[in-house]
Amino acid sequence: TQPTPITVAYGDGIGPSIMEATLRILEAAGARLQTEVIEVGEKVYLAGHASGIAPSAWDSLRRTKVFLKAPISTPQGGGYKSLNVSTRKSLGLFANVRPCTAFAPMVPTRHPGMDVVIVRENEEDLYAGIEHRQTEEVYQCLKLITRPGCERIVRYAFEYARLHGRKRVTCFVKDNIMKMTDGLFHEVFDEIGALYPDIARDSMIVDIGAARLADTPERFDVIVMPNLYGDILSDVAAQIAGSIGMAGSANIGDQCAMFEAIHGSAPDLAGKDVANPSGLLQGAVQMLLHIGQADVATRVQNAWLRTLEDGVHTADIHRPGTSTALVGTREFASA
Amino acid sequence: TQPTPITVAYGDGIGPSIMEATLRILEAAGARLQTEVIEVGEKVYLAGHASGIAPSAWDSLRRTKVFLKAPISTPQGGGYKSLNVSTRKSLGLFANVRPCTAFAPMVPTRHPGMDVVIVRENEEDLYAGIEHRQTEEVYQCLKLITRPGCERIVRYAFEYARLHGRKRVTCFVKDNIMKMTDGLFHEVFDEIGALYPDIARDSMIVDIGAARLADTPERFDVIVMPNLYGDILSDVAAQIAGSIGMAGSANIGDQCAMFEAIHGSAPDLAGKDVANPSGLLQGAVQMLLHIGQADVATRVQNAWLRTLEDGVHTADIHRPGTSTALVGTREFASA
Ligand SMILES: CC(C)[C@H](C(=O)O)[C@@H](O)C(=O)O
Ligand SMILES: CC(C)[C@H](C(=O)O)[C@@H](O)C(=O)O
Repeated sequence: TQPTPITVAYGDGIGPSIMEATLRILEAAGARLQTEVIEVGEKVYLAGHASGIAPSAWDSLRRTKVFLKAPISTPQGGGYKSLNVSTRKSLGLFANVRPCTAFAPMVPTRHPGMDVVIVRENEEDLYAGIEHRQTEEVYQCLKLITRPGCERIVRYAFEYARLHGRKRVTCFVKDNIMKMTDGLFHEVFDEIGALYPDIARDSMIVDIGAARLADTPERFDVIVMPNLYGDILSDVAAQIAGSIGMAGSANIGDQCAMFEAIHGSAPDLAGKDVANPSGLLQGAVQMLLHIGQADVATRVQNAWLRTLEDGVHTADIHRPGTSTALVGTREFASA
Repeated sequence: TQPTPITVAYGDGIGPSIMEATLRILEAAGARLQTEVIEVGEKVYLAGHASGIAPSAWDSLRRTKVFLKAPISTPQGGGYKSLNVSTRKSLGLFANVRPCTAFAPMVPTRHPGMDVVIVRENEEDLYAGIEHRQTEEVYQCLKLITRPGCERIVRYAFEYARLHGRKRVTCFVKDNIMKMTDGLFHEVFDEIGALYPDIARDSMIVDIGAARLADTPERFDVIVMPNLYGDILSDVAAQIAGSIGMAGSANIGDQCAMFEAIHGSAPDLAGKDVANPSGLLQGAVQMLLHIGQADVATRVQNAWLRTLEDGVHTADIHRPGTSTALVGTREFASA
């Protein structure tokens, strides 16, 4: 079979090191990929491209439609619009899928039974980026919620649940306060949920929902929510499942998709061969499933689990005083 | 000394039962109070007062300036504006102070060392309640952040830290996305923080901050944040400290103050004498400190801790199979 063309960005900070490790693992597992490397982030921004992506890079993304992206750092400067946000919007990546699964006992967690998938709306809400100064002392930011936006993400969540054999979709909103915007999200959740009688559904006010998620994540299955709640609560869920450093994320659109780690570029660890490539690797596993290479995805996932089981750990996960081995990024990838 | 006049609302659901218990404890501890009871909530709303508060009740609140409020239920119906929100705004209660402290081993928690105070801005942000339908399919809600609003809450947080011997104030914002609104909050945090060289300060993006709070709350001391983040994360913090059912909250303004439990009215438990009065009691302890009855506050707090230590628990906290005693609301209050 033909290799699948994908676009790759090595990113900043620990990005190059974890991307190298990830691509080496994919190759060893027999992934059929043809990679096009693009430059994104700080350098591109400083060269005058406000989005942090050069026009030629957009061409590659529009051609391959599959983007594996390492973390990038946020340049300082007023004009900068988050690269993550521009990419999500320009490529129409409306769904952000973040599996938060415990891998106990290999990765310590207080919630070994946890296996939650957060489906975050990825384009609307306060992320529309519409902000202005109304008077000298008053600033406004617009929260935008649209019916098509709600329909798309809610339908995606139920389809995802069905496809992955999951039993329940929960909705988090604050519609006791935001009766129109969050109220719309809730209304659409009920409308579309009714079309999936095989999947249970419930909804919670986001404050109580967040408290329950932090306390007893085991009770949740798939949770769908607007952009900002999803941003905050996927970090919470990934962290209590084990570590933000081990979670990957898929940004899905009708045409294109982007896969990444949910953590940042950790500039202080750059070039030290210590970072954990697991987050990006988990993103890559989602990518392999997306492009129809489930066989490779399974091999990668099994090798990764086996490495953790063997007690081979990078510094973020390794516990001193145990019989497990402390290794660097390269050695972890080799294992 | 003269008794202090306070306004009391028994609320809905479990409200009357936990208020009765709380007032009985305060009386037994020698609190010098003269209570005026007002009616709020569903009945008042149905009688035609959209805020759920009758004009005569506002008079009482403006006179006593101290409000001890039991949980109220949210009436169904489009015109209803949250009573909590109307009260906070009408009385200018700009600071919501939510201590989230573990009481281990009496109350089970994974975080026995936790002692966090969340200082939540209480009037601005998406709670301004400005929402509209822009087109048939597009809804907007306005997030408002003002310089005076930020200054007031940040100053309050640092003053609170100083007064209570706390060492650090942390700020949670999402200013990598909301550069103007959350950017202003962050800017004011640094400006005002610089005036408190005796208090350490740092700031985190709210997603990472939330993840750290859920994972290792022990590392935090005082955290100050805009309204909505504070709503969500104070529920998270209270729950992982032990239970949302045990946390009280103070809503502080220049003139008035309101004290409450952070939990809701739990209509299904109404009239069963099973609810835990601890959340409202913790609110009442903050009230006693506020009105200068620290001696009584100490007596109440000690009696409460002693009751928990004695293993006297309501059903929400009691663990079957232990030698602790399962009691109802009244018996807990008597203990
Ligand atoms: C970097 C930032 C813009 C981004 C977001 O807020 O979406 C990140 O936190 C994430 O969750 O992917
Ligand atoms: C009832 C609701 C309006 C309220 C809020 O969102 O502020 C509650 O959740 C709280 O935290 O006191």
